[in-house]
Amino acid sequence: MSTSTAHPTAIVVLSGGLDSTTLAYHLRDDGYDLRLLSVDYGQRHRRELDFAVATGRRLNAPHHVVDLSSVGLLLRGSALTDTSVNVPDGHYTDTTMRITVVPNRNALMLDTAVAIAVTYRADAVAFGAHSGDHTIYPDCRPVFLEAFRRSAQLGNEGALHDAFQIMAPFLSWSKADIVLRGAELGVPFDDTWSCYRGEDVHCGGCGTCVERREAFASAGVDDPTSYATV
Amino acid sequence: MSTSTAHPTAIVVLSGGLDSTTLAYHLRDDGYDLRLLSVDYGQRHRRELDFAVATGRRLNAPHHVVDLSSVGLLLRGSALTDTSVNVPDGHYTDTTMRITVVPNRNALMLDTAVAIAVTYRADAVAFGAHSGDHTIYPDCRPVFLEAFRRSAQLGNEGALHDAFQIMAPFLSWSKADIVLRGAELGVPFDDTWSCYRGEDVHCGGCGTCVERREAFASAGVDDPTSYATV
Repeated sequence: MSTSTAHPTAIVVLSGGLDSTTLAYHLRDDGYDLRLLSVDYGQRHRRELDFAVATGRRLNAPHHVVDLSSVGLLLRGSALTDTSVNVPDGHYTDTTMRITVVPNRNALMLDTAVAIAVTYRADAVAFGAHSGDHTIYPDCRPVFLEAFRRSAQLGNEGALHDAFQIMAPFLSWSKADIVLRGAELGVPFDDTWSCYRGEDVHCGGCGTCVERREAFASAGVDDPTSYATV
Repeated sequence: MSTSTAHPTAIVVLSGGLDSTTLAYHLRDDGYDLRLLSVDYGQRHRRELDFAVATGRRLNAPHHVVDLSSVGLLLRGSALTDTSVNVPDGHYTDTTMRITVVPNRNALMLDTAVAIAVTYRADAVAFGAHSGDHTIYPDCRPVFLEAFRRSAQLGNEGALHDAFQIMAPFLSWSKADIVLRGAELGVPFDDTWSCYRGEDVHCGGCGTCVERREAFASAGVDDPTSYATV
């Protein structure tokens, strides 16, 4: 528990996507005070940050938007940060989607969140990874998150309390489970952004668009998203 | 070993101070190809970065200067990033020096180095922590560096090779040992910066100035530094 409030505080890594937006609503419903962190790492789909800002306003939570684009500029070869590399069409599980891995991205975002947690004496950092992420992103796996927590705890000993957690409550959930939970909580899905291409509307064909469409269909929840392709 | 060169490559976290500058010379002498990383985290003594750039030029090594000042701005309460907090005079081991801890700083710098290591297929990230740092900075301890390495390895599985290392060859050395090694290697000590106050010359009174002076005296090496106070 934080010393400054009656409720525990969580620093939520909020991309502006469906998963992390639902996570923020989910934790608020669980009784957490929220402090939000969004990161500009030079992602092609930087417009997701506008959706993150809108979510922060709706939830009336303090929100830090941090500029790590200077790091992103160094990271050649990922379709998400290197505009000379095309975002592939297809399913997340396709090997072509490996090109969307951004080197060490989650560690950088989580460590920024940990720094904020130390400064604001928060109880947890929360992260929206889900079971569908494990296959392709090594930094979405439970084994990574546990190793990360231990490293963060040791690196900030005396400044983070012993019960400090890295929470990833959706880690064993499917994206359809997240959609169901979001619908229950009244998350305005239309105000979340997934598409890696970052154009005016969701493209409908990249891995994250395909996954988003399938999740709504599988959950039996009406999908309010406009897609460029049917 | 890197696949692209005959020599192993190390990403050296180079602050522009005496320790990390000597580390770069030391690793070059050990046969490493160097790639340097310096970080602007909004430190009051940002002028250390000018010394880092000069070192990069002298060593003719690729050098990334990364802007994380957007994170530094969030971190209230450390004398190194919050100008409303004074840098204390005194010895490093004084409890007053705890105010110079920057939340999660080394993890963020090392994360950036790991991201570069993935992109450039480097063999190691190298870091200039020494035995005198352990007392005050939890993120300079061997136990942290080992936990960090494990987390980085898991977070980038398949992208970092199995022998990837976080090297901190000075971890059991005193600062006097580093001065001795630097003298042996011909490190131009006058072109390194330690003082936390970051004014025109080294103040001579803050923890890192006191430690620098003592290291030269203890090593019996001529100290070329101009200090404001005798």
